[in-house]
Amino acid sequence: MSDKLIIFDTTLRDGEQSPGASMTKDEKLRIARQLERLRVDVIEAGFAASSNGDFEAVKAIADVIKDSTVCSLSRANDRDISRAAEALAGANRGRIHTFIATSPLHMEKKLRMSPDQVFEQARQAVRFARNLCGDIEFSAEDGYRSDMDFLARVVEAVIAEGATTINIPDTVGYAIPELYGQFIRTLREKVPNSDQAIWSVHCHNDLGMAVANSLAGVKIGGARQVECTINGLGERAGNCSLEEVVMAVRTRRDHFGLEVGIDTSQIVPASRMVSQTTGFVVQPNKAVVGANAFAHASGIHQDGVLKARDTYEIMRAEDVGWSANKIVLGKLSGRNAFKQRLQELGIEMDSEAEINAAFARFKDLADRKSEIFDEDIIALVGDESVTSEQEHYRLVALSQRSETGERPHAKVSFFVGAKEVTSEADGNGPVDASLKAIEAHVQSGAEMLLYSVNAITSGSTESQGEVTFRLQHGGRVVNGVGSDPDIVVASAKAYLAALNKLQGNVERTSAQW
Amino acid sequence: MSDKLIIFDTTLRDGEQSPGASMTKDEKLRIARQLERLRVDVIEAGFAASSNGDFEAVKAIADVIKDSTVCSLSRANDRDISRAAEALAGANRGRIHTFIATSPLHMEKKLRMSPDQVFEQARQAVRFARNLCGDIEFSAEDGYRSDMDFLARVVEAVIAEGATTINIPDTVGYAIPELYGQFIRTLREKVPNSDQAIWSVHCHNDLGMAVANSLAGVKIGGARQVECTINGLGERAGNCSLEEVVMAVRTRRDHFGLEVGIDTSQIVPASRMVSQTTGFVVQPNKAVVGANAFAHASGIHQDGVLKARDTYEIMRAEDVGWSANKIVLGKLSGRNAFKQRLQELGIEMDSEAEINAAFARFKDLADRKSEIFDEDIIALVGDESVTSEQEHYRLVALSQRSETGERPHAKVSFFVGAKEVTSEADGNGPVDASLKAIEAHVQSGAEMLLYSVNAITSGSTESQGEVTFRLQHGGRVVNGVGSDPDIVVASAKAYLAALNKLQGNVERTSAQW
Repeated sequence: MSDKLIIFDTTLRDGEQSPGASMTKDEKLRIARQLERLRVDVIEAGFAASSNGDFEAVKAIADVIKDSTVCSLSRANDRDISRAAEALAGANRGRIHTFIATSPLHMEKKLRMSPDQVFEQARQAVRFARNLCGDIEFSAEDGYRSDMDFLARVVEAVIAEGATTINIPDTVGYAIPELYGQFIRTLREKVPNSDQAIWSVHCHNDLGMAVANSLAGVKIGGARQVECTINGLGERAGNCSLEEVVMAVRTRRDHFGLEVGIDTSQIVPASRMVSQTTGFVVQPNKAVVGANAFAHASGIHQDGVLKARDTYEIMRAEDVGWSANKIVLGKLSGRNAFKQRLQELGIEMDSEAEINAAFARFKDLADRKSEIFDEDIIALVGDESVTSEQEHYRLVALSQRSETGERPHAKVSFFVGAKEVTSEADGNGPVDASLKAIEAHVQSGAEMLLYSVNAITSGSTESQGEVTFRLQHGGRVVNGVGSDPDIVVASAKAYLAALNKLQGNVERTSAQW
Repeated sequence: MSDKLIIFDTTLRDGEQSPGASMTKDEKLRIARQLERLRVDVIEAGFAASSNGDFEAVKAIADVIKDSTVCSLSRANDRDISRAAEALAGANRGRIHTFIATSPLHMEKKLRMSPDQVFEQARQAVRFARNLCGDIEFSAEDGYRSDMDFLARVVEAVIAEGATTINIPDTVGYAIPELYGQFIRTLREKVPNSDQAIWSVHCHNDLGMAVANSLAGVKIGGARQVECTINGLGERAGNCSLEEVVMAVRTRRDHFGLEVGIDTSQIVPASRMVSQTTGFVVQPNKAVVGANAFAHASGIHQDGVLKARDTYEIMRAEDVGWSANKIVLGKLSGRNAFKQRLQELGIEMDSEAEINAAFARFKDLADRKSEIFDEDIIALVGDESVTSEQEHYRLVALSQRSETGERPHAKVSFFVGAKEVTSEADGNGPVDASLKAIEAHVQSGAEMLLYSVNAITSGSTESQGEVTFRLQHGGRVVNGVGSDPDIVVASAKAYLAALNKLQGNVERTSAQW
């Protein structure tokens, strides 16, 4: 068996399906480039058949990514598979990933199909896909709750049809490490042609054991691909965290004896980019990428760390990309320095006009903030990509005041399409007043699910605030992100960004396990 | 072997040691009461000998908690153990928890003691403690990286001296489930008197496997106590999460066959209280208690869930205490209704004067915010307890304004001790201007490590903002939390709260594994 563990990242597909985590094509492209720098083996870029937007994103990623395999999900039918193949046409290395549920519960309640029908559809799907692409992954949705003998029959058939990777997800996060590992092992033993495919695990974190389950699938079960996401992003409690599974295999090489191709120094930058893009915060006590992951507070520990670093540290912060914030640019930096820094950060812009617009924003920010950090640049470009794509609503100017004993007041000017409007309102606070001013015109009817602010950089009260609004309307949930040194302005930007996303057409079908 | 799994919560000891998570005595008392409502078997209330503040907190908790065992940590020396016994004197059920490191690395580099010295000290400590208390826990710090035979010799000796619980921590979060489970099992087999104590596990989450490791220690190793914290709070990547380990044992009763005494409907309230008190956010994709833990976004999933709830849900949200926010009080609510709601929330106040002060704040809030939720009340009381205890700095009034193209300006009046000062400043934004105004007088020299804001309740832009500042000064890290419908005011309150904590004397010794 190979001693290489394949890292399959599904941040852009399964991660993006989290309520509120939807991303624009430009955002997905930026993350895909970071995943390539991270050297993940496979990037699942989306689910091409689910919407035109998803198709375009998969296609754009397939066209620019050179080193990683680019994958599209598809249901087990010819239309989905054809769309996936079409989106992947420009890929250096493409993979079609087709799936169907195999558990009694899912077959009966969701698919309303008999086991024989599911068997037949799986086989035909892989046969069809195999003619379009040499790299075919088959996933048995809710595989871990499936009947072992039936599952073995399906897997044997799809391998015979040419599936090259077999994925057995724990769709609902129900597994326990030793049971899941043994399940994969027994299944492999029951499938006569099991050695003709690479086995893969895909675990959800509902009981907090996605990483341990994945690793048991590898160590006990013999799987050689792990499906995971940056920050463990994903529906409900999320997916297996890429950073945790990779660092566990690295730190405990003595136990696993496996190689991973990841450039771990890109882990923290990837974590920040995904968190900033989706507005999903990373809690301080998150393993590897949390703000506290490498800090020590207690007296005894500090003493211990001084005496011998490995008394309490099993990993080195710098190995996963933690480093002091670098002051990269300031007020006097020119366009070339800015452009070069964009390149170093892996941010590619399509045109000189886009670079010029971003540079103008940068100068505007540098006028107000003396030190510009990498995070500021990422946030600035993030703003840019959202507003340039779908700028139905756009902030022009804002003034507000609040005083103890008086009702806060705000006046907001913004574009609605091509028309500039100005509106005033009172509120409980300046943010509330600003949103009420916007809503007085827009009347979106959206419900606010979440409001959060994080300082983009630490070490100074001059930091920019990055605001995330999560809004819900008509069954859809969107996140809007906005940043500015003025928190009220950042809030108004974020609110308008969320309204723009609600405005956009994102009817689609999606899937997760 | 017993089929009861003992839940030992160390949020107030190991959790509180996270940089920035330090809590006041009143905050600890409030959380201890919530832990009792949650029906945890053992509450580790602190480390009595580490500081006078810790001693007072342990004593206060021991005096009021009736149903749960109250525990204090102590190093393996007579002074520490005596202080623990003294603090626990009023407890209905008290436990002394003494520890010493047993790994070669920790003995050599940190303790600078030989194995024989450690052996002797452990034995003498337990002998001494046993005369003061009938319930003695012994922990072998860094136990998982200790020499098995040496560890077995230590454990046998301390059981012979009367230790009733033996805890084997994975101090640095290095374990893998099957290895850790097997380690505990083999160790138990090597200790002749192992059946005279309850075995306990204490796992850290550095590689994301604390829950799985703990459960392997239980299932494979035969441990019957799990040490854990609410939200997995704790140094670095934190401890095993109480909510995850409890729900795993409940949901997979088929596998574990164990009972836990926890009232799971109190899990989400406990999570919110700990998060609000410490300012440590819970990420949306956190298992069980994250905002997304029970949400579904994708089309396929929604369809599946409609057809059969258990297609994608292995737990029910209401079983862990998720429920719609309740509008509990409003402008017209009287003092009795407020007092009753405090009682229902488990918030006990020491005097009528305190209730009156809180009620005055409540009326002030109700004037500005039409719907008052449970979370608002908890935040309001949180503010109260901080300021009433150590109100060196206290906000009186704030006015601020910002306008596109002009520099934001703030004017802040606040008490410094008994003296009221007023100060003005410009800044990059209204928050920055307010802090600069405060700093113009205070000149704390503190460095800002983190700034975050979360809406306390969702569903409306009228929500209060809850602001957390994390400041560092002179090697100490503190969190200040402040809430207000006006985010700038909340920020100023949080900043002053953090300055108050920096001002307080919290020199102490602490420990963790």
